[in-house]
Amino acid sequence: MTLAVRYTAARTLDTAPVEPSEPGPGEVLLAPAYVGICGTDLHIFHGDMDARVAAPAVLGHEMAGRVVKVGAGVEGWRPGDAVTVMPLAWDGTCPACRAGNSHICQNLDFIGIDSPGAMQQRWTVPADTLIRLPDSLALDKAALVEPTAVAVHDVGRAGVRAGERVVVVGGGPVGILIALVARAAGAEVRVVELSAHRRKLAEESGLVTWDPAAEDVVEAAWEWTGGAGADVAFEVSGAAAGVDTAVEVLGVRGRLCLVAIHPRPREINLHRFFWRELTLVGARLYDRTDFERAVELVADGTIPAERLISKVVPLTEAPAAFEALEGGGDVMKILVDCTSDTEGASA
Amino acid sequence: MTLAVRYTAARTLDTAPVEPSEPGPGEVLLAPAYVGICGTDLHIFHGDMDARVAAPAVLGHEMAGRVVKVGAGVEGWRPGDAVTVMPLAWDGTCPACRAGNSHICQNLDFIGIDSPGAMQQRWTVPADTLIRLPDSLALDKAALVEPTAVAVHDVGRAGVRAGERVVVVGGGPVGILIALVARAAGAEVRVVELSAHRRKLAEESGLVTWDPAAEDVVEAAWEWTGGAGADVAFEVSGAAAGVDTAVEVLGVRGRLCLVAIHPRPREINLHRFFWRELTLVGARLYDRTDFERAVELVADGTIPAERLISKVVPLTEAPAAFEALEGGGDVMKILVDCTSDTEGASA
Ligand SMILES: NC(=O)c1ccc[n+]([C@@H]2O[C@H](COP(=O)([O-])OP(=O)(O)OC[C@H]3O[C@@H](n4cnc5c(N)ncnc54)[C@H](O)[C@@H]3O)[C@@H](O)[C@H]2O)c1
Ligand SMILES: NC(=O)c1ccc[n+]([C@@H]2O[C@H](COP(=O)([O-])OP(=O)(O)OC[C@H]3O[C@@H](n4cnc5c(N)ncnc54)[C@H](O)[C@@H]3O)[C@@H](O)[C@H]2O)c1
Ligand SMILES: [Zn+2]
Ligand SMILES: [Zn+2]
Repeated sequence: MTLAVRYTAARTLDTAPVEPSEPGPGEVLLAPAYVGICGTDLHIFHGDMDARVAAPAVLGHEMAGRVVKVGAGVEGWRPGDAVTVMPLAWDGTCPACRAGNSHICQNLDFIGIDSPGAMQQRWTVPADTLIRLPDSLALDKAALVEPTAVAVHDVGRAGVRAGERVVVVGGGPVGILIALVARAAGAEVRVVELSAHRRKLAEESGLVTWDPAAEDVVEAAWEWTGGAGADVAFEVSGAAAGVDTAVEVLGVRGRLCLVAIHPRPREINLHRFFWRELTLVGARLYDRTDFERAVELVADGTIPAERLISKVVPLTEAPAAFEALEGGGDVMKILVDCTSDTEGASA
Repeated sequence: MTLAVRYTAARTLDTAPVEPSEPGPGEVLLAPAYVGICGTDLHIFHGDMDARVAAPAVLGHEMAGRVVKVGAGVEGWRPGDAVTVMPLAWDGTCPACRAGNSHICQNLDFIGIDSPGAMQQRWTVPADTLIRLPDSLALDKAALVEPTAVAVHDVGRAGVRAGERVVVVGGGPVGILIALVARAAGAEVRVVELSAHRRKLAEESGLVTWDPAAEDVVEAAWEWTGGAGADVAFEVSGAAAGVDTAVEVLGVRGRLCLVAIHPRPREINLHRFFWRELTLVGARLYDRTDFERAVELVADGTIPAERLISKVVPLTEAPAAFEALEGGGDVMKILVDCTSDTEGASA
């Protein structure tokens, strides 16, 4: 038996021994080492996604670990290989897949939401979800590859070019990663963030930040760009006010990349979209190319992973970590350490 | 003295004799023949644009006519030449102009709103606004070149490609022209329109229409596209319900081209933009290339101008035509005939 963190009902997680499944044909058994807790995991914890998540459900999709065993017909992977997982399974037959957009397949299975996730000591996944990690990359840092792949995808969707001026609204884990990836693409970047702790972390990573509670961000963007307005804005706050900011900082032909999830409709100034010929681009998830680029960016230190990891907790303390994260506070990314030695881990 | 249609105060137009100005250096004196009444002219008439329009103001920017006299330094134009006007004057120095987007210059002068328009017997404009018309093209039909240029620009902004499935929401003059231009680009098109009269006109032009009051348009689009959703939607209704329709008919990676003017913010389903990676593209006005293409499309009959022109009224009856248009009813495009013989027209 091995241990797993399971969502059992709204606001309730447990850690329970589960029987690891043998990898079937085309599958691989992994030993997750570190698994990040992300906003979606928190939404599930709140009970907001009960329509989609079948409790008891093992959470987690931001992971790094090692191959334990490969199933029949799996080539190219051996026990001990360091990997991360692109947690997507598509049908390959829907109109989206046929048009080459399988990452947003109309029947997408997101592993860790729609099927069991990584927050456990053994995890079986399809071999084609594996992404190789270089031996030089520590597995705790590598747990940031998945959210970095989100950022790479988003910067690509927005078409950020060298020399462009970019405003990132919301400096949580995803926003900071977007800012760092955009900067690596040669853009000048400003991060708009309410939390002093998160602004400080961004500044320590060499980013310039604006506090929307203390200054008029639209005015600041106008001055910064000499009256031209920003070329690109990313909405990564999830807040109605963040959407307004992202629209208003843009200049003529500016592009707004929508990353955050807004469960409710938002009022949008469409007149501004008409007047300045703005573009809004939705961005969701990533594809394999994004993941491979993300591995490079984490491995070469473009992403200062050590600074963004606020805390690492043993698997048995994951439920407490969820409750702490819920309360907000001075954190960026919390990892769950699945390698911690427990009675069940020897299976 | 020559006659002009002037906006003097909210809901008040008059026709008054005005002294035509001599064309200065770089300018041309025109004799407008036909001038279309458009939605913006109606907004001015309602008094909605008093902040921008300095009464008494001569309205009109959808025109065709002939050159009467050229000012000093003007080359390439002679009296009698048939022309239409691209009614834009930009500063050439703002960030938008420097980035190559002078059609949406941050200090744009739209001739017919910000400076005197075409609804008069003599009109002086900068020579660089002129667009040549072929002799074969009747001047009444040529009055549709300006709104057709809007449609060409919009279809270009949406990047419509042959074989794509396009839904046009709102079958007013601009919507129908967009549908016709998109069809000429090889797209399959559906027009969503509330008015039976306008649907009939669209059908007579060979377009297929959907009545949103009689059928579930989102369902219809889903069936039409075999569950894929439309590739492109144009929002040309100006209505909140039209925005929802345009968002909901789109499939994965669909593009929504926003053409209509929405003076108030609208609630938008941003979650859908995220989930399907949709794009929203604002479109405003046109550039010279759009105008030249529009001349071709009107001249070669791709745009069935005779069908879209509901009525031609003499200049002296323009005020009555505005009041009639305001009431809605069974009309598409009304033209004002500025050549009608009046006492002042001989100057
Ligand atoms: N597109 C995708 O595929 C994808 C992937 C992962 C996450 N997401 C979404 O991205 C968003 C961000 O994720 P995260 O983990 O960084 O979330 P987060 O909640 O940790 O970060 C959001 C940040 O925005 C800040 N904020 C709130 N209101 C603001 C305002 N008005 N102005 C400036 N800052 C403001 C908050 O202080 C917070 O730091 C979430 O909505 C998440 O669901 C999308
Ligand atoms: N982007 C630009 O540069 C530009 C240029 C010209 C006009 N416009 C704008 O384009 C819009 C259309 O112009 P127009 O002259 O054709 O206007 P219009 O008002 O004559 O046409 C709008 C049509 O939409 C229909 N409609 C309303 N609600 C609907 C709904 N829910 N579903 C389907 N149809 C619906 C109406 O019946 C009407 O026929 C206006 O908002 C106008 O200001 C923009
Ligand atoms: Zn699919
Ligand atoms: Zn300019």
